[in-house]
Amino acid sequence: MQARITPRDKDYNQWYLDVIQQAELADYAPVKGCMVIRPNGYALWENIQHVLDEMFKETGHVNAYFPLLIPESFMKKEAEHVEGFAPECAVVTHGGGSKLEEPLYIRPTSETIIWSMYKKWISSYRDLPLLINQWANVVRWEMRTRLFLRTTEFLWQEGHTAHASEQQAEHETLQMLEVYRRLAEDYLAIPVIKGLKSEREKFAGAERTYCIEAMMQDHRALQAGTSHNLGQNFARAFDVTYQDEQGRRQLVWATSWGVSTRLIGAVIMTHSDDRGLVLPPRVAAVKAVVVPIPGKKTDPGQIIAEAHKLANEMNLGRAVQVDDRVNQSPGFKFHHWENRGVPLRIELGPRDLEADQAVVVRRDSGEKISIARSELAQKVTEILENIQQDLFDKAKKMRDDFTFDIDDRESFIEKLDNPGGFLRTHWCGRGECEAQIQEQTKATIRCIPLDAPEEKGSCPFCGAESMRRVIFAKAY
Amino acid sequence: MQARITPRDKDYNQWYLDVIQQAELADYAPVKGCMVIRPNGYALWENIQHVLDEMFKETGHVNAYFPLLIPESFMKKEAEHVEGFAPECAVVTHGGGSKLEEPLYIRPTSETIIWSMYKKWISSYRDLPLLINQWANVVRWEMRTRLFLRTTEFLWQEGHTAHASEQQAEHETLQMLEVYRRLAEDYLAIPVIKGLKSEREKFAGAERTYCIEAMMQDHRALQAGTSHNLGQNFARAFDVTYQDEQGRRQLVWATSWGVSTRLIGAVIMTHSDDRGLVLPPRVAAVKAVVVPIPGKKTDPGQIIAEAHKLANEMNLGRAVQVDDRVNQSPGFKFHHWENRGVPLRIELGPRDLEADQAVVVRRDSGEKISIARSELAQKVTEILENIQQDLFDKAKKMRDDFTFDIDDRESFIEKLDNPGGFLRTHWCGRGECEAQIQEQTKATIRCIPLDAPEEKGSCPFCGAESMRRVIFAKAY
Repeated sequence: MQARITPRDKDYNQWYLDVIQQAELADYAPVKGCMVIRPNGYALWENIQHVLDEMFKETGHVNAYFPLLIPESFMKKEAEHVEGFAPECAVVTHGGGSKLEEPLYIRPTSETIIWSMYKKWISSYRDLPLLINQWANVVRWEMRTRLFLRTTEFLWQEGHTAHASEQQAEHETLQMLEVYRRLAEDYLAIPVIKGLKSEREKFAGAERTYCIEAMMQDHRALQAGTSHNLGQNFARAFDVTYQDEQGRRQLVWATSWGVSTRLIGAVIMTHSDDRGLVLPPRVAAVKAVVVPIPGKKTDPGQIIAEAHKLANEMNLGRAVQVDDRVNQSPGFKFHHWENRGVPLRIELGPRDLEADQAVVVRRDSGEKISIARSELAQKVTEILENIQQDLFDKAKKMRDDFTFDIDDRESFIEKLDNPGGFLRTHWCGRGECEAQIQEQTKATIRCIPLDAPEEKGSCPFCGAESMRRVIFAKAY
Repeated sequence: MQARITPRDKDYNQWYLDVIQQAELADYAPVKGCMVIRPNGYALWENIQHVLDEMFKETGHVNAYFPLLIPESFMKKEAEHVEGFAPECAVVTHGGGSKLEEPLYIRPTSETIIWSMYKKWISSYRDLPLLINQWANVVRWEMRTRLFLRTTEFLWQEGHTAHASEQQAEHETLQMLEVYRRLAEDYLAIPVIKGLKSEREKFAGAERTYCIEAMMQDHRALQAGTSHNLGQNFARAFDVTYQDEQGRRQLVWATSWGVSTRLIGAVIMTHSDDRGLVLPPRVAAVKAVVVPIPGKKTDPGQIIAEAHKLANEMNLGRAVQVDDRVNQSPGFKFHHWENRGVPLRIELGPRDLEADQAVVVRRDSGEKISIARSELAQKVTEILENIQQDLFDKAKKMRDDFTFDIDDRESFIEKLDNPGGFLRTHWCGRGECEAQIQEQTKATIRCIPLDAPEEKGSCPFCGAESMRRVIFAKAY
């Protein structure tokens, strides 16, 4: 009746898909490369949105909504941008039964449409900074897709800000990177490294791209968020200037930054196990499920009523649920909620009723704890926080265990395949060398960590001098 | 410096656009018929979303996300549906640089893609009811557009539910109509009439369409939300069946229901005046603005500091703001916030400081009230609730004043043009007659009110017998 999940060490990719299917997080859509985000998956996205949106507002940002469709001519205004994005766009050629005069691109990202509006809205230094975020869907025509991690359509937020100076734009870029770090580490329990992308890996149209990089359980890297300092590139392309306090016309400085439903893939791959999904309590829609266990001599109705009473006592609102189905066994229910990653299961049987207690079972460790009813609400809150911290610590330990200082080409190639991980390696700084390494090994520079200490060394591939180590890895 | 708003009685349509522009709610986008929802407008949408989403969850619904792009063949599976929607679709013919094998429609509504998934998810009575909502953008290629009220792309929510019986589907349809009434009346302060659409006006693919209808200040009707009983039409088109408790295969019953960013247009047109936007407090992002008024002898820094202190005392979080700009006059600021519809202005000058009070000014009535600082937080809460109620009462009075019982053709035509309004008129029930009335007068049947009493009469156009009055009006 209940399907099994392929173990990670047997087939990691199948395990990932099995976890998603068993937890009912997503499903393939009839359009190639597109995904349906099912209610259990979307609930996770809603919680991510909730946390991020509050952090955006705390830092002075407001939300707005810009059109889905971008005229082809707009896409072409920023040379690097169109080169990077046009090949992966979906194009609308007909509307209302007629062929359109100009093709419209479904937004792959919104810099061009947004900066065409900023031209109308910005004229004076008083209009700056302009700090706008958008929650939206975007489409990028991907050849090889994977649920959550890479889909033709995905949901994301994209912040687009305008500033009076380069310094303010850089400050904003780094501030939002820190917001993403807080989301990843404090809520998703995913340890990340903040860093700078190399020139080859930066966003099409950016001066500098910063990122947070995480390590998945198969030791591959996953880019979990990016924040771009766009310099004056889009202001120039769309002729957006402001009059400064001295009455001079100046080009505006820009940033953009985004995270997407890809983060759900990161949560799955960071914490789940061979029994299915494991969710960090702070973003789990259901934090605890109460399973009544009727005894042979007790009235099942009484146990179910007590289970509801107990759930109410926990003051968790809709985050605590009671599995009161009468046609399923307790074992079936345990399995059901394990698969779905609910952090805590609370068992309530006749003996627990007698002893005025309940048995709490942690999804992450399997630990069983008997707790007196009078202390349950408080203890559950504590245990949820412990789980949150333990998940982070466990993921961080794994990342640290599979981060290696590499000083020669042979170790690089050896470690990259087995066991895989983050290879802290000197690099000469040349894009040509970087491209060769990628071609030869499939490793890319994930980032130049912001906290990388200055350290003399030499690039193990070309031998040229290097001043700091960067992180190479195979990536999603 | 500050632009004026065209008075309503001079040019109602221009007034509407002026209000939107001065309040910075929305802007025309470079793509024909599309709109940019600016931060002030989007904040209103966020509050609508927040209220509705909570009501959806209270009634057992969950959110999910389905793809933007729908294969042409899916659209064609329900005959009435494709006939109604295909002519107004935007069509993607190219993706990733190549021509697609099958054109993809940008969703004008999601019944077809969703029911193709429900076929995968529903097999037993245990899978029912399935109560899913989606927050999304949709595209309908409109010829004549108007900001918020009718745009090529708009934001909405669309609920799509699946049930085991006709009765349950009908119950759901009416339950969600009531949710919409609560949103409109209790939060947006817009009185609405719940009713049934005529066969001609119902949703393409529905058995029955219910709606809430509101009256705008120019006495035109505006459809503010719809809830459809889809019968088994989509289940039949997509072959969605379930096994009932007796093991028999049965077709599933369906509903869908939606409201959109059109509601923002309804809020604007219901409450605003010749000085600009007026917002109901419960959905205003900024409920009160504190304007410090420096005296000639007092330190402006002190007044500004006190204004911030006062704002903090109100416990309204980000819903209270301080306009502490030093380069703008109080008069400029009054005008600025009036335009934006902020329900309360709180003035703080040197004399107020001395008297330990503040002056509170209502946006809706202009009433000025001096309130002791110690009572301010509580009084402001009360005044905001009074404003909410007064706005509803005023709108309801207007609607009632311009609702007429009509019994003959001449009065119908006369009243329809001057003063306009809701014409409660007998109707024979024939679509042919309805079409002729529309052709001759441009009036449509807005709805057959659910609470319309049985009353014998005759259709003033064809003379045939009628059992109840319906509401005719010119509509947006």
